[in-house]
Amino acid sequence: MIIETKTLNLESDGNKVTYHEITDEVREIVKQSGVKEGLCTVVSPHTTCSVIFEELSYDKNFRGYEYLQQDLNELMDQLIPKCEVEGQYHHPGPEHIRVGLEEFKGKISPEAYTMLNTDAHLRSSLLGTSESFIIENGELQIGLVGYIYFIDWDQNRKRTRNCKVQVIGK
Amino acid sequence: MIIETKTLNLESDGNKVTYHEITDEVREIVKQSGVKEGLCTVVSPHTTCSVIFEELSYDKNFRGYEYLQQDLNELMDQLIPKCEVEGQYHHPGPEHIRVGLEEFKGKISPEAYTMLNTDAHLRSSLLGTSESFIIENGELQIGLVGYIYFIDWDQNRKRTRNCKVQVIGK
Amino acid sequence: MIIETKTLNLESDGNKVTYHEITDEVREIVKQSGVKEGLCTVVSPHTTCSVIFEELSYDKNFRGYEYLQQDLNELMDQLIPKCEVEGQYHHPGPEHIRVGLEEFKGKISPEAYTMLNTDAHLRSSLLGTSESFIIENGELQIGLVGYIYFIDWDQNRKRTRNCKVQVIGK
Repeated sequence: MIIETKTLNLESDGNKVTYHEITDEVREIVKQSGVKEGLCTVVSPHTTCSVIFEELSYDKNFRGYEYLQQDLNELMDQLIPKCEVEGQYHHPGPEHIRVGLEEFKGKISPEAYTMLNTDAHLRSSLLGTSESFIIENGELQIGLVGYIYFIDWDQNRKRTRNCKVQVIGK
Repeated sequence: MIIETKTLNLESDGNKVTYHEITDEVREIVKQSGVKEGLCTVVSPHTTCSVIFEELSYDKNFRGYEYLQQDLNELMDQLIPKCEVEGQYHHPGPEHIRVGLEEFKGKISPEAYTMLNTDAHLRSSLLGTSESFIIENGELQIGLVGYIYFIDWDQNRKRTRNCKVQVIGK
Repeated sequence: MIIETKTLNLESDGNKVTYHEITDEVREIVKQSGVKEGLCTVVSPHTTCSVIFEELSYDKNFRGYEYLQQDLNELMDQLIPKCEVEGQYHHPGPEHIRVGLEEFKGKISPEAYTMLNTDAHLRSSLLGTSESFIIENGELQIGLVGYIYFIDWDQNRKRTRNCKVQVIGK
């Protein structure tokens, strides 16, 4: 039985929702693992990101979004509007801001406004933070038009995100 | 350690959202695998389908939907209306239609209107394409009233869909 | 290869959505299993519950909800309002009520009104009933601020819910 775990380091834009199409990277991890039959799990260890399985849409708009990404952005903007100001959502409350600024000082969130990412938290809960894929004959079973995307919903901070890819099988 | 992977072939209606209740099929795969303790992952390799875990609702309406399915349809119709005409969503754009009609000719989507399935893509992203279940004592742990459903959200094409079921355990 | 499966027994409030923060319990199961590299899957065997990965929000309101929980409640109340009366949703229909009261007598749902939990079923489908986490170096890879929550969406019945936690690895 083989277990192989890798981490992808992905740069977020910091001024918009960031989509990383990581299909080739995941395929390469499966190939390198030598697993012929098994499970491939793609996971965000962050609570403001998601992993989805979606078609690649061949058109892109001026901001660089594939059309299906733009449609998903508009759906999310409608359901869970971007958090622009304190008080728009309950979170983050005063105690959360205090903990962020004082207790996590030097580790995360250097400025209060960067914690205005409640929309990103809710979107991440709604879409989930992991997705599972099947490996047969050494190949990811994702069809002819299936692609894997890692999404950073947080539009406040440019930073490096981790995406965990794990292959279990034989 | 045992790994067993099977594919269910499921016929979609082509004129409505199609729900396949696959609990017995999944149970049989678990039983045949001989796994007593492990993980059962049910996966759609298609980007317009979902796998959910839901109760069986004993009433059905005239179109054949169980009542909980009808309630889910209405929720989806409200959040992500059925794509009826080009331009309703950004996707599919002109380049996507061109690629579909020319480069994938003979493989998929023989007519442009069948690519008007943006709603199906977004619904699939929202609900996810996989679900995980636990096996203990050789039995799926899904309670007294839990059922597994494979959903094809695409209402444009009658076709055979694959659902992957994988059991890992001992 | 190690497989370890444990069940957490969690008391639901019965008068509101119940959130159980189970991060320490999951960490302890990972530790006890001895797995250094592997997959940890957290699963609800109930169709009215969800498992999510979310940040802990340090402020709480009068009803005991962390602020991010309150924000998620309000999102759900908007998308899928609490079922207050028969006929509000299609489910549960008359046959479902009959089956619940007669055929499942003594096992579940002693009174008809307790089956008015359609909102809980739909919320569970929308957010999913499982979440996957990665284990490396014997540690859950959930970042500095990631927490695991089991949610019982059903606001009608006080009862003990099961949450399955499975670790597979080496």
